[in-house]
Amino acid sequence: MTLETLSINRAYGGAQGVYRHASAATGTEMTFSVFVPPHADGARLPVVWYLSGLTCTHANVTEKGEYRRLCAELGLIFVAPDTSPRGEGVPDDPDGAYDFGLGAGFYVDATEAPFATHYRMWRYVTEELPALVAAHFPADTARQSIMGHSMGGHGALTIGLTYPDRYKAVSAFSPIVAPGQVPWGHKALGGYLGADRALWRKHDAVALIEDGARLPALLVDQGDADQFLEAQLKPHLLAEACAGTVIDLTLRMQPGYDHSYYFISTFMADHLAWHARRLG
Amino acid sequence: MTLETLSINRAYGGAQGVYRHASAATGTEMTFSVFVPPHADGARLPVVWYLSGLTCTHANVTEKGEYRRLCAELGLIFVAPDTSPRGEGVPDDPDGAYDFGLGAGFYVDATEAPFATHYRMWRYVTEELPALVAAHFPADTARQSIMGHSMGGHGALTIGLTYPDRYKAVSAFSPIVAPGQVPWGHKALGGYLGADRALWRKHDAVALIEDGARLPALLVDQGDADQFLEAQLKPHLLAEACAGTVIDLTLRMQPGYDHSYYFISTFMADHLAWHARRLG
Repeated sequence: MTLETLSINRAYGGAQGVYRHASAATGTEMTFSVFVPPHADGARLPVVWYLSGLTCTHANVTEKGEYRRLCAELGLIFVAPDTSPRGEGVPDDPDGAYDFGLGAGFYVDATEAPFATHYRMWRYVTEELPALVAAHFPADTARQSIMGHSMGGHGALTIGLTYPDRYKAVSAFSPIVAPGQVPWGHKALGGYLGADRALWRKHDAVALIEDGARLPALLVDQGDADQFLEAQLKPHLLAEACAGTVIDLTLRMQPGYDHSYYFISTFMADHLAWHARRLG
Repeated sequence: MTLETLSINRAYGGAQGVYRHASAATGTEMTFSVFVPPHADGARLPVVWYLSGLTCTHANVTEKGEYRRLCAELGLIFVAPDTSPRGEGVPDDPDGAYDFGLGAGFYVDATEAPFATHYRMWRYVTEELPALVAAHFPADTARQSIMGHSMGGHGALTIGLTYPDRYKAVSAFSPIVAPGQVPWGHKALGGYLGADRALWRKHDAVALIEDGARLPALLVDQGDADQFLEAQLKPHLLAEACAGTVIDLTLRMQPGYDHSYYFISTFMADHLAWHARRLG
């Protein structure tokens, strides 16, 4: 598992790196970023995974997420993968739409042609990249957590609900909580997984909870001026699914905030502090 | 003085806006950003000016500068102008180089053809835009300060030294302190102001200090891994110029830091706190 360093910049006493590697999961080269905070020699640090939304690469949160200050203060490694495979031979949306194909992997392993060959983002994010990070960075793999934004919030919720023992904290900014019930999800899960909606339920946070998946707590921030709130995000569906279960959902509607990184960066410190408390 | 709002996003309880207007100084449309922190109705707030470096627009610091958290906490308006005129008929570097012409106005009023018509960034930043900001935002014009990065550090230092009563605090990240003594400055000041080096001295912080300009204090952060340190920045020239004067220079060499926004964002909070103390 070799890793090519594309850039490394000192920040907040730590190191913000961008790396590339040949992925077995996707059959492409993949790029991701890792911030390693200042730490004592030999220390192993908890890892926060951040999954990005539609159209993003690793770069959006790396440049605009404002996570480094608190990661440095709290001693957290912060990893930001890409949102899809890219490169020669990777099929895109036939119409070049932003919500499917490149930049829109939806954190699933596609089973439908022509996407099944490369669109293996579930395996990439839950297996291959964690192993790579564990091998190359001072990571304590017993202390991992996951967060994400929009499509990446969907990824964080579904992955967290699937592996509640692995991820000690799960949170999201304006997540797609029920892809099976909204247009973005219909298109993506239909395109990647096919028409049988029963197969979508493992990639739908609300359906996972309905089907019995549990974790101790969730933190979700959602701007009430988010242009996608009504049609695509529907956080009330998550609240309804969690009601009466052991899942302690904190859903905060943030007045005046939209879907942008101006929103995410405002509440990033809250999320990181919440994660750090659970990572010990 | 009409102002067109291009975008406005809620952030840290305040409003991050991007605006466009027809500039009399440059004879072009100009774009700039303003963050207004949360504040009481009717309050007038101090204004921090941030001047950007070569190749930048208002967007670089707006997206990557990590200033909003502390501006919200300290009640500071933060204004980021563009670095040059742009648009139809604005001449660029004849070879399209990054260090002259578009994105490289150097905060001077050009006197040389063909640049004299539009490249009036000194007047724009010190007269026209302050009047516009005073008219459209809850600004206390008696409490202004200025900072900048690289070419914008040059702008902040020269403007601050020229108007010590107007700007209550002046600081810089990796500034060009002596353009008359380095290649970037030779090209820019020669190209905009002509061959007579005596005319450059008003746009050279070290020369201004040598010629008697004074202010109470300066804060400068400089990464020691900055690729431009030796050839273009030369902060020791500023230290030598300030030595024995009333100017209380704090020059901090930051180990391992480069010229990027990873560096700037790391120390932005220090600068804003330093400004806020002087803005009262």
